[in-house]
Amino acid sequence: MTQHGYDGGRLNLPFTGITTFARTPYLEDWAGIDADAAILGAPFDGGTQYRPGARFGPRAVREASTLFTFGHAGAYDHEDDVTYLGKDVRIVDIGDADIIHTDTIASHRNIEAGVRAILDAGALPVVIGGDHSVNIPAINAFDDFSDIHILQIDAHLDFVDERHGVRFGHGNPMRRAAEKPYVSGMTQVGIRNVSSTAKEGYDAARGIGSDILSVRQARRLGARGVIERIPQGAQVYVTLDIDAFCPSIAPGTGTPSHGGFLYYEVLEMLQHLSRRHEVVGLDLVEVAPAYDPAGVTAILAAQILMNTLGFIFHARMAGG
Amino acid sequence: MTQHGYDGGRLNLPFTGITTFARTPYLEDWAGIDADAAILGAPFDGGTQYRPGARFGPRAVREASTLFTFGHAGAYDHEDDVTYLGKDVRIVDIGDADIIHTDTIASHRNIEAGVRAILDAGALPVVIGGDHSVNIPAINAFDDFSDIHILQIDAHLDFVDERHGVRFGHGNPMRRAAEKPYVSGMTQVGIRNVSSTAKEGYDAARGIGSDILSVRQARRLGARGVIERIPQGAQVYVTLDIDAFCPSIAPGTGTPSHGGFLYYEVLEMLQHLSRRHEVVGLDLVEVAPAYDPAGVTAILAAQILMNTLGFIFHARMAGG
Amino acid sequence: MTQHGYDGGRLNLPFTGITTFARTPYLEDWAGIDADAAILGAPFDGGTQYRPGARFGPRAVREASTLFTFGHAGAYDHEDDVTYLGKDVRIVDIGDADIIHTDTIASHRNIEAGVRAILDAGALPVVIGGDHSVNIPAINAFDDFSDIHILQIDAHLDFVDERHGVRFGHGNPMRRAAEKPYVSGMTQVGIRNVSSTAKEGYDAARGIGSDILSVRQARRLGARGVIERIPQGAQVYVTLDIDAFCPSIAPGTGTPSHGGFLYYEVLEMLQHLSRRHEVVGLDLVEVAPAYDPAGVTAILAAQILMNTLGFIFHARMAGG
Amino acid sequence: MTQHGYDGGRLNLPFTGITTFARTPYLEDWAGIDADAAILGAPFDGGTQYRPGARFGPRAVREASTLFTFGHAGAYDHEDDVTYLGKDVRIVDIGDADIIHTDTIASHRNIEAGVRAILDAGALPVVIGGDHSVNIPAINAFDDFSDIHILQIDAHLDFVDERHGVRFGHGNPMRRAAEKPYVSGMTQVGIRNVSSTAKEGYDAARGIGSDILSVRQARRLGARGVIERIPQGAQVYVTLDIDAFCPSIAPGTGTPSHGGFLYYEVLEMLQHLSRRHEVVGLDLVEVAPAYDPAGVTAILAAQILMNTLGFIFHARMAGG
Amino acid sequence: MTQHGYDGGRLNLPFTGITTFARTPYLEDWAGIDADAAILGAPFDGGTQYRPGARFGPRAVREASTLFTFGHAGAYDHEDDVTYLGKDVRIVDIGDADIIHTDTIASHRNIEAGVRAILDAGALPVVIGGDHSVNIPAINAFDDFSDIHILQIDAHLDFVDERHGVRFGHGNPMRRAAEKPYVSGMTQVGIRNVSSTAKEGYDAARGIGSDILSVRQARRLGARGVIERIPQGAQVYVTLDIDAFCPSIAPGTGTPSHGGFLYYEVLEMLQHLSRRHEVVGLDLVEVAPAYDPAGVTAILAAQILMNTLGFIFHARMAGG
Amino acid sequence: MTQHGYDGGRLNLPFTGITTFARTPYLEDWAGIDADAAILGAPFDGGTQYRPGARFGPRAVREASTLFTFGHAGAYDHEDDVTYLGKDVRIVDIGDADIIHTDTIASHRNIEAGVRAILDAGALPVVIGGDHSVNIPAINAFDDFSDIHILQIDAHLDFVDERHGVRFGHGNPMRRAAEKPYVSGMTQVGIRNVSSTAKEGYDAARGIGSDILSVRQARRLGARGVIERIPQGAQVYVTLDIDAFCPSIAPGTGTPSHGGFLYYEVLEMLQHLSRRHEVVGLDLVEVAPAYDPAGVTAILAAQILMNTLGFIFHARMAGG
Repeated sequence: MTQHGYDGGRLNLPFTGITTFARTPYLEDWAGIDADAAILGAPFDGGTQYRPGARFGPRAVREASTLFTFGHAGAYDHEDDVTYLGKDVRIVDIGDADIIHTDTIASHRNIEAGVRAILDAGALPVVIGGDHSVNIPAINAFDDFSDIHILQIDAHLDFVDERHGVRFGHGNPMRRAAEKPYVSGMTQVGIRNVSSTAKEGYDAARGIGSDILSVRQARRLGARGVIERIPQGAQVYVTLDIDAFCPSIAPGTGTPSHGGFLYYEVLEMLQHLSRRHEVVGLDLVEVAPAYDPAGVTAILAAQILMNTLGFIFHARMAGG
Repeated sequence: MTQHGYDGGRLNLPFTGITTFARTPYLEDWAGIDADAAILGAPFDGGTQYRPGARFGPRAVREASTLFTFGHAGAYDHEDDVTYLGKDVRIVDIGDADIIHTDTIASHRNIEAGVRAILDAGALPVVIGGDHSVNIPAINAFDDFSDIHILQIDAHLDFVDERHGVRFGHGNPMRRAAEKPYVSGMTQVGIRNVSSTAKEGYDAARGIGSDILSVRQARRLGARGVIERIPQGAQVYVTLDIDAFCPSIAPGTGTPSHGGFLYYEVLEMLQHLSRRHEVVGLDLVEVAPAYDPAGVTAILAAQILMNTLGFIFHARMAGG
Repeated sequence: MTQHGYDGGRLNLPFTGITTFARTPYLEDWAGIDADAAILGAPFDGGTQYRPGARFGPRAVREASTLFTFGHAGAYDHEDDVTYLGKDVRIVDIGDADIIHTDTIASHRNIEAGVRAILDAGALPVVIGGDHSVNIPAINAFDDFSDIHILQIDAHLDFVDERHGVRFGHGNPMRRAAEKPYVSGMTQVGIRNVSSTAKEGYDAARGIGSDILSVRQARRLGARGVIERIPQGAQVYVTLDIDAFCPSIAPGTGTPSHGGFLYYEVLEMLQHLSRRHEVVGLDLVEVAPAYDPAGVTAILAAQILMNTLGFIFHARMAGG
Repeated sequence: MTQHGYDGGRLNLPFTGITTFARTPYLEDWAGIDADAAILGAPFDGGTQYRPGARFGPRAVREASTLFTFGHAGAYDHEDDVTYLGKDVRIVDIGDADIIHTDTIASHRNIEAGVRAILDAGALPVVIGGDHSVNIPAINAFDDFSDIHILQIDAHLDFVDERHGVRFGHGNPMRRAAEKPYVSGMTQVGIRNVSSTAKEGYDAARGIGSDILSVRQARRLGARGVIERIPQGAQVYVTLDIDAFCPSIAPGTGTPSHGGFLYYEVLEMLQHLSRRHEVVGLDLVEVAPAYDPAGVTAILAAQILMNTLGFIFHARMAGG
Repeated sequence: MTQHGYDGGRLNLPFTGITTFARTPYLEDWAGIDADAAILGAPFDGGTQYRPGARFGPRAVREASTLFTFGHAGAYDHEDDVTYLGKDVRIVDIGDADIIHTDTIASHRNIEAGVRAILDAGALPVVIGGDHSVNIPAINAFDDFSDIHILQIDAHLDFVDERHGVRFGHGNPMRRAAEKPYVSGMTQVGIRNVSSTAKEGYDAARGIGSDILSVRQARRLGARGVIERIPQGAQVYVTLDIDAFCPSIAPGTGTPSHGGFLYYEVLEMLQHLSRRHEVVGLDLVEVAPAYDPAGVTAILAAQILMNTLGFIFHARMAGG
Repeated sequence: MTQHGYDGGRLNLPFTGITTFARTPYLEDWAGIDADAAILGAPFDGGTQYRPGARFGPRAVREASTLFTFGHAGAYDHEDDVTYLGKDVRIVDIGDADIIHTDTIASHRNIEAGVRAILDAGALPVVIGGDHSVNIPAINAFDDFSDIHILQIDAHLDFVDERHGVRFGHGNPMRRAAEKPYVSGMTQVGIRNVSSTAKEGYDAARGIGSDILSVRQARRLGARGVIERIPQGAQVYVTLDIDAFCPSIAPGTGTPSHGGFLYYEVLEMLQHLSRRHEVVGLDLVEVAPAYDPAGVTAILAAQILMNTLGFIFHARMAGG
């Protein structure tokens, strides 16, 4: 996956080198994407309602990702007895969408352009936020798809229609997605506590058939049980808000909510998903490094992304 | 509950505004309390034996509480399908008791006066510490009550009688409470590891009939099982030391102790308690923001308090 | 100035109590301002180009201001042998302007409404940011004034006209102010290093007659010398960006720039200004607490504001 | 265990006094050890591949250990109804091995000398790292033993033979141990995720008969189940890398890995081990305080060490 | 000065070893002091009025002091061309006074006992606070002296007589000292801004002849000029509050005050003092590590103490 | 200088994009350098004697450098009325030298190879450490030069010959440089306080003709005065240890030393140097981000580097 590496004559300890995601090649020319997956940073946090700073999320996640890339031919997992992300999986980092401060529309438009470029190249888009509003342009870019099911893993429902004129903040993305004709369903997992969405939002979500599961409900179902509620055969877009996790492992986020998921609970959902469904896109949002003094939130984000990419491409190859 | 709010023409994002608890009205005149519950800050930390700083607890918890108050008509919980803390629940914030540095007795006296003022007004006292010694004046103020059962959720037994002349430090409150004729029983949950209380303290506590449960013992019983050990019909005063929780979610405290409770374990005990017992008073102590770099401890305290207040008043109304 | 205090029977140590600015009374009804000065929080940071977080500036400055309010009848300065801010100076805190995430225009409009309310009441507006873009609505509110001179103390010129469509970000306020017919002149002090403003911005500023001084140039002139360059008789609006200061005492800001002013350099400019000119308005912006681990930036902001308010009202009374 | 204490006329709150481990006597002369256990600091972190700083581990763990030593005659555990570490258990702190920057070999040699001195005195060596490479000299010192089984609790396999010439870094210790004729077996628990060890390392470890268990596998077996896989009668050396724990409770380490053990999972393994096996040595490594802003990692290390020492000597006395 | 050291066969890098002050020998038996100077920790912070935490000051200063002790025969200063603190200067660390939480009187009594023990042994007492109230028992211990002049270097006058019954807090020490018949004069340098002392305190201090100098006044006089205002021949006790310094280099303190001294300004006063006067005692107070994230405040305290001790004993030997 | 930029259709706010130094192009192939200057990261900190972490210095300085690169055609300085670093100055970032943990010699060899590659291409080498030992391989690479004068700006003399066998740690570089036949002289500025170098080191340095100046001595001479002591016509290599600066602006370093330089003092020395001498190489070392919570140290390093590069190439062009 990486062009540096032990074989290339360097040890490449994780604290060395330019910080693209997982040391993948940086591709400045978005017209030239030729890869299985492409990483796009979406450092926009103008949609936040409490602690800002997710604009530094892509930078922090890229830096943390270097911890998982030292000197191997792929990533061996002894529990699965599988080496993930071998040289046959080609990933590139296309840098960040251009952000225009004070201008949500323009910033979102630039993010959408990046996701479109990735989709046009036939690669899997992996968007690193930024706040959860960056999911809006990401979903916009899928308008050539017919039926997408969204798996949202999040503490908050994010289903506000409009409040004080705001329609594109980080409390709105699932409502915006639900309006798309090509979004056929939605599974919202991890939703808990007093949300930014009032009762009317829940009613609206249920009204369009969304499957809303709290952490405790998901726990009772088990990872496999949750995934099996997604319609068989659905193409799935995953949007993972880092605040889905317990603040114990994800303090570095804008609106922490206690009672969240632990690591394996989410990982296993994503592993089951990868085996059972085609994953057509992925975003991971709301990592805010200013509130992550020990760096564990960024490490969590990188670890989840690396493993999930491994699962997706392992399943594709096994299935191919 | 709040006089600002979406209906009042403002969006009131959580980072705006003066930080009373949950944006409730500030009442400076303690003679004029007319509410269902009143919040009193007790910023005294002269009783600490290790890391001080709980004097900034009330301020931090108030600030964190704003995260749970944005623009709703009450707080909708989709798991319970209940909207808690609607407009019919009137809460006020009466500010802080006056603290006199170097003078524990005078500081405690001022805290006691605040709790008495709340009780005299027929409101539920909610005390935010400060260190656990502030429980001493809080319990003092209940001398008009006849039988109070104390539910202590804590890592430490706090049952020291006297050591080097100290009787009113944060290792003493449960011993002081046990001396009150109107305290009829005690359930001490979460107690673990090497405590500041030696074996003699445990023997004394057991001697007065205290029910001492470790985290592992409470886990085996379940939340409901723990609460069902409290005598039926008892009026319960809850004293919640934030170090009852695992340091993973409550690092910001003076004497962290590993192996503590996770979020839902405590929340569910408090929900069961609210359904089964009349809660007559509540304190939450030992939040020390200087050791809480990501703010998650203060958020935990605020989240627990908001939910518990919701449970208590929902039960009262359901039961009334 | 404060209604609590030693005489009122409380010690009121600085860590106690609800955090209005300097413990001044909180006035929720903007139509009812009756005071010499009014504090308005403007917690908007959507205009930032690097590290966000100034939305928490008002909260942090209010909390820090309590350090300067314990138990006195005014604030005695032994160097000046003056007691500043005695009971005859009436200050109120009117809370924060309502902020609408993703919407710069609406947020600015709400800030402007607050400043107008203060001016309508004949009080001195004191705006605590938020990022420097909040100066734009503040200046808008002065359209009933005829000739205002702006004293900007800042690291950056903030004179960008438009870039990628952005006209109301934190790099634009001085350009927007220069467009006002009622702004008759500008002194820009502390400007240094590679600015966000390119050469064309400097040319434009000089073109309208702005007096641009670097830190080293201001140091050579002395505090009095700088102030004496402001036209005699001018009514002065002060806009103080905390990054005018050296990062050694003001690390907690979005775009720190080394080589800034030390404490007395700015304080003495403001003292000379207060003696020589009528100050008609004041904003202090860009305090970002997430980057202020020891709290010294917020303390600096509070200390400067408290002293400057003392100078202004002492001069008014002496001059009256 | 401690010579200060309540009986000695002092209260000795945990924030007072010189910070030897658990306030045990400091013994500068390594030839004069006369104790049941001896603490040796091994502040070497030249073997780290990501975040350094474990050189400050011994200092931080010693300071945190004072929290568990205030004024008792031993440490009473109410769950076990046992008072651990009474006066009959003699522990000394022999300070730190001398570290030579830029020189791994010399630093390791000095650590080895310390462990040999402890073993020569018939005391239990307890080594506080430093990075995991300090296990190499510790194991070297056991060459007079015949059959030692190593229980490694760790996120990483640390079984790299040689890479770019490096044989004594923190990725190598288990490979080095496996080469010793007196190391008869190895149980490696907590191993998870993408390791610094590639597949060949796992193959090699399995080749020598190592029992490798992930966190999820160990969880399924239970603490007792894991320990029962260790050959009956084996003398066990425990090497505990703090990154075996979940980053939620152990953020302060060089290479955090999500999905780790919680507190009681490790504690119970060590308690079962102490009952079933003779523990002949112990090291706890990779505490890096610079990434531990709330101090919880150091507290975890101290809490685990104190309890484990209690278990070991309680079992010895019970068994004697 | 240190018994470890290069000559002793160890490199003793500053991060190794037990943290007594400057690696001096630890003397537990206060009756056995035989040294030129003795270090006493006074970890009491019950007298603080804002941010607590100075109880961890002795521990932090001791740890920082190790930075200035690596492997030399004394400390060579190339500007002075002098090697300070050679082997002929004998310093011991006698640990900390016993602190009794909630009990200011008892804690102060224990501090006084430590200082008396040092004076009885004919050694120079060096007290590391703790808050500034620890100066009260320190001065108490000098009652066998006849005429002591106090040089206070501080931001605050600390001359409050009594407020709400408080007479022994950190705002009172200079008033308490002024009441002693054996305190013949006082020089108070660095006093600035709005103090905790109101005008009446200044009047009282001036009334007893105290020489009060602000930072700006001291700067105009120069270090030598300040010292020359102390009466010729006076025996001087130095009390140094770390908040005398600019918060830029001393953020880690309870009540930071901008506009303070820079490093050489204080160092040069202390060097001139050492040459011109006999220094009979010394305390350094108010280092609060919880607000010192980069450790620079503790390093400042250690650096000032090490240099001042060097100046004092160099002057004694030169003068002898 | 940068290929992104305003003209290229992007706004490129400083928080966006891959973090090469100042957004300069990343050149992986060291054989293909075609530029005026090349940046090499040297993330080695195995030579540190106190707080490690400078291995993350290159990453932090690169990230901070983005603050100085937003959207301009060069960097306009209004004091000099010069636009520095226009498109005619070509800078590339060649990434980091490969570091081998536990192996100082190999790591240094890899750094040397990078500097040689830059020199071979005729570009100016700019090395970002890493600890000060990385100066050793940097100087090694200049063996084709005839007479180089080294300007060291540093708190410490770093002139230890050998101690416990260590010859290549961060206390040794100036001694190693002095041994080179092509190093003809040395100016060591900022040296202060108790150094890691004992008196014999100073004697040795003076013996080879080194000009040693403390901060106070340099201040008296002025920036120009210091530079004029360097022999006319000398080719100068600059080695800048960030601890030369006052800890107030450079807390993020391993061995802070109070009393250091302020920003303009060093900047002006480097500006005078650039005008008067040919600068043939440059390193900036000892930035340790783990101790830089507000990021100001990394910003200082980036700001100094950007300005110095501007001065050097402005002088070259003016002089050409």
